[in-house]
Amino acid sequence: MKARITVTLKTGVLDPQGKAIEAALKSLGIAGIESVRQGKVFDLEVSAPDGAAAEATLRTACEKLLANTVVETYTIEIA
Amino acid sequence: MKARITVTLKTGVLDPQGKAIEAALKSLGIAGIESVRQGKVFDLEVSAPDGAAAEATLRTACEKLLANTVVETYTIEIA
Repeated sequence: MKARITVTLKTGVLDPQGKAIEAALKSLGIAGIESVRQGKVFDLEVSAPDGAAAEATLRTACEKLLANTVVETYTIEIA
Repeated sequence: MKARITVTLKTGVLDPQGKAIEAALKSLGIAGIESVRQGKVFDLEVSAPDGAAAEATLRTACEKLLANTVVETYTIEIA
C-alpha cells in the first residue's frame, strides 16, 4: 500500500532554510508571503498485511531514520 | 491564511536520494518498504484577501522558486 510521511520542524525550532526562501521570494517581488518553513515528504510503497502493520513499520522507519525526533515531528498517512 | 505546498518528483524521474533511503532502511533491518521517493514540503503563512488570491501568489512562488517544473510537480493546499 501507498503511504506518505511528512516530517516538519517542531514549533520554535529555528529554520534558516525557510528564512532564506522567504528572503528569496521577497527579492523576486512575490509579495504577501509572511513566513515559510520547509520540511520533507516521503512517498513510500509498503508491503504489509494490513494498515496497522504498515503503520508500525513506518513509525519505526521514522524513529530510526527519517525524522530527528529531537527537533522534528512526523505524520504518517496511509492511502 | 496557512497553506502547504508539496513538491514531488514527476513519475519516471530518477530519485537517487529515495534509493539511498531505501537501502538505509534495509540495512537498519526495517523490512517491507518497497520504494521511497523524497520530496519537499513548505508550510507558508500568506496574507491575501481571499483564497483565490492566495493561490495565485503561491502558484507564482512555485513556478518561480519552489519547484523545478521540468522534473517536479507541486500541489497547493490552502487551510
